[in-house]
Parts: sequence; C-alpha cells; structure tokens
Amino acid sequence: MRLDVVFTPQGLAPADVTGRTVFVIDILRATTAMCAALAHGAKAVIPVGSSEEAVRLAQTIGSTDLLLAGERNCVRIPGFQLGNSPLEMTDETVRGRTIIMTTTNGTKAMLATQGAGAVYAAAAANLSVAGVAARDVLERQRDMLIVCAGRDGAFSLDDAYAAGRLAVAALGGRKPRRGLNDAALAALDLVRRYGDAWFRPLAYSRAGRELIRLGFRPDVEDAARLDAYPVLPNLHDRRVTLAPAA
Amino acid sequence: MRLDVVFTPQGLAPADVTGRTVFVIDILRATTAMCAALAHGAKAVIPVGSSEEAVRLAQTIGSTDLLLAGERNCVRIPGFQLGNSPLEMTDETVRGRTIIMTTTNGTKAMLATQGAGAVYAAAAANLSVAGVAARDVLERQRDMLIVCAGRDGAFSLDDAYAAGRLAVAALGGRKPRRGLNDAALAALDLVRRYGDAWFRPLAYSRAGRELIRLGFRPDVEDAARLDAYPVLPNLHDRRVTLAPAA
Repeated sequence: MRLDVVFTPQGLAPADVTGRTVFVIDILRATTAMCAALAHGAKAVIPVGSSEEAVRLAQTIGSTDLLLAGERNCVRIPGFQLGNSPLEMTDETVRGRTIIMTTTNGTKAMLATQGAGAVYAAAAANLSVAGVAARDVLERQRDMLIVCAGRDGAFSLDDAYAAGRLAVAALGGRKPRRGLNDAALAALDLVRRYGDAWFRPLAYSRAGRELIRLGFRPDVEDAARLDAYPVLPNLHDRRVTLAPAA
Repeated sequence: MRLDVVFTPQGLAPADVTGRTVFVIDILRATTAMCAALAHGAKAVIPVGSSEEAVRLAQTIGSTDLLLAGERNCVRIPGFQLGNSPLEMTDETVRGRTIIMTTTNGTKAMLATQGAGAVYAAAAANLSVAGVAARDVLERQRDMLIVCAGRDGAFSLDDAYAAGRLAVAALGGRKPRRGLNDAALAALDLVRRYGDAWFRPLAYSRAGRELIRLGFRPDVEDAARLDAYPVLPNLHDRRVTLAPAA
C-alpha cells in the first residue's frame, strides 16, 4: 500500500492518480464549503475551472435549481449568489439545489484528479468520516493519495496540516516505515508540531491570516470545527454528491 | 523583509525571484557536489538543463580543461567523466577545471532563478558560510528566497530540512511572526522535529533511501557533514564560481 501526499496539484501526472483513491483538501475554504453544502441538503456541487465556465454551464443546464458559488482572492465573484464560505451554505439557501462552484485553488485541485479510482473531498469538517474511508482504503491494501489544493501552486500550511490529520486517521496507529512519500512524512510532522487543535495551524497559514484580515474570521473558525459537517463528498461524473453508503 | 521557501522550483514566477537573493538547495547531491568541486579548486561549474546541452556546450567551448558531470536517476550519464557525487570532486580530479553539470533536479532549480539579484548554492556542506550570507540579506532588510530542488516537481524532505536549517541561520534567533511564507514555517518545523543531526532527515527522505539502496550511502553521509566544504558557490552569468569575498 502507498499513502502519498502532494502539497499542490501542479505537476500531478496521470500515473500519480490513476486507479488510486484520492482525497482533495482545500480546508480554507472549498472542501469545507462542499461538506457544508451537502450536509445541508444540496443535491450536488459541480466544480468548474473558471467563472466563465460556471456561467456557461448554468446557461446550458438552464434549471432554476442552480446556484453559482465562487471567489477570486477570497471575495465573491460579482453576479454569483454565493461566495466560498461554508457559513453561506445554510439549509435554507442550498437544500435541493445544485451549486456550480469555482474557487482559486480548490476546484482546480478536484479537476486535477481525472483518472482516479475514487475522489473525495476532505476537511476538518468531515475528518472522522473521511478518515474511516481512508483507513478502509489502506486496510484493503490499496493506494491512496491526498491532494492539497495549496495556494497558487505553492505549499499551504492549512491544507498540509489537514493532510497530516487525515494521514493519521488513515494509518490508525500503524507506523509504516515505507510506503509514505516525503510530503506524507512532513505532513505527519506538522501534526506532531501543532497537535489536535485545528484553529492554530489554520490561523497561522497565509490563507488564514488573509481571511481574518478580510473579515472572514468566522469562516476560519468554522473550518476548524472538527466533524462539523460529517458527510463524505464524492466526485463522480464531474459532480460532487454524497458518497453512497459503504 | 521576506523569507520565503519554495519546495520545488515548479511554478516559480519571475515576480517570486526578481531582485531577490536566492539560495538553491539540492543537498542530495547537486549543491553538495558544487561546494565540493569549488572547495577543491574547480574554476567553475556550469549548470545546464540536459545531457545533450552539456555535450554541445563542451564542443562549443572546446577546452581541454572541461569535465562533464551529471546523473539521471542517480547514475552517471554514459560518456561523462563524473556523476553527481561530491566524493568524486577530489582535488586531483577537479582543480583548475571547469565542470559542465546536469542533474535531474538541482541544475534545473538553478536555472529557474533567472532574474534574481544574486543566486547561491547551499547545503549542509556550506551551511555556516551560506548562513552568514543569508543573515546579511535579512539584516539589510532585503528579501530572500530559498528554492528547494525537490524531486521531479514534488516536495523532498532532505531539501526541506536543509531549507529550515538555512532559515534558522538567516533569522539568527529572531522569530518574526510575519514575513515568512507557509513553506518557511513548515521548514522551520522540520528543524524542530529532526534537531541538529543531518543524517536522519537525509536518510529518511526518498532520495536518501534510494541512494543508499543503490550503494551511495557514503554520498549521503558526506552530504550530512556540516561545513565539509565551506565555500559559497555563486551563480552569475550562467556559471557557478566562488562568491567574491564580502
């Protein structure tokens, strides 16, 4: 079995992904928002690469059930109903709706997983649920890959810490000396460093500091709530929906 | 001042580099080998992107002083006089010679720094010397960037740990809360985790494990020798030579 982590989706080759079970993490805020949306009854989230594509797809589908969600540099895209905040994904707003979502890093990371055996979204919000799924992958001697969305192609502390937490959950106390790549080892080191409290590494990260500066501190606090939205978003046929029960 | 680290040169934009003082790290083994070569009297090391380019450049220069050095997947390129091992860079072999060098990751990282204010090579082999230069950059309120060569576009533990050690030296006990990017914070965390002993993080890394498996354990041990080759290689006009004394 292999448990690999990549700190950005840039440079992912098809061979890194093919047939593997992939967990995508963009804890601030895309994968947290996906968990919130599905937990509050959204039918699906469709990740797309650009705001133009989001608008085009909405026109093609032409349904009144649609919501457009997305941000660029933390701020809601003009004309979109929703930004990228998990706190916007209330039951009242999203139940029964399909959300077309585009974000700076998170949706790009999801779109980089083409060819994977299965793709899930992970965050603190669904750590226990995602951890059970991840542990199951390793117990069946399959390979898993955690893709951090990162930040404009660079390492981001918030996602790397979350990757470490998911790796801890996947390993379930085992300490394999092989089968982990260097990034997985470093992610586990971050968990040793920051311990169990989610808020600190999130608030230390550049993404977290920027969100707090822009007035989104409640989003950072929400993203740090363990198991706040305990669902397992599953990307399949370009749509993210609740994973079928195992 | 800013102290940023990137774990791979992939995705470096000109704006990340322009005007900055850049330290390139490929501790296993390119930047260690450069230190060894210059410490043992080589006139210059010329990093090039491919073995074809190395051969072409050697033909263009046409001097008998030249040596070709390079590896692909740890192994010396056929027809080249040298591989990538610092232990090959003996006084007898390299004194007075110019070395044209191509390696899987290290020379690519050097070539990605175009536009920088100054570019140096760093490793354990020259940590104290590079640390003094790095501290000087920060004391003059200038920005510095540490570029890890990484491994085929991915994070590598050996370079990241070395980046942390260089960052510690650059900061000289200061603990800035701002001015460090997330990768710099994570690199500092690796130093907390592994402490002062170089061999352990090098031998844990995938690059180190592979070198040991291929019979290059002495290279890993040599790369872990603090201040073994206390020189400051400086990339300038596409050649790496000893930095002029400050």
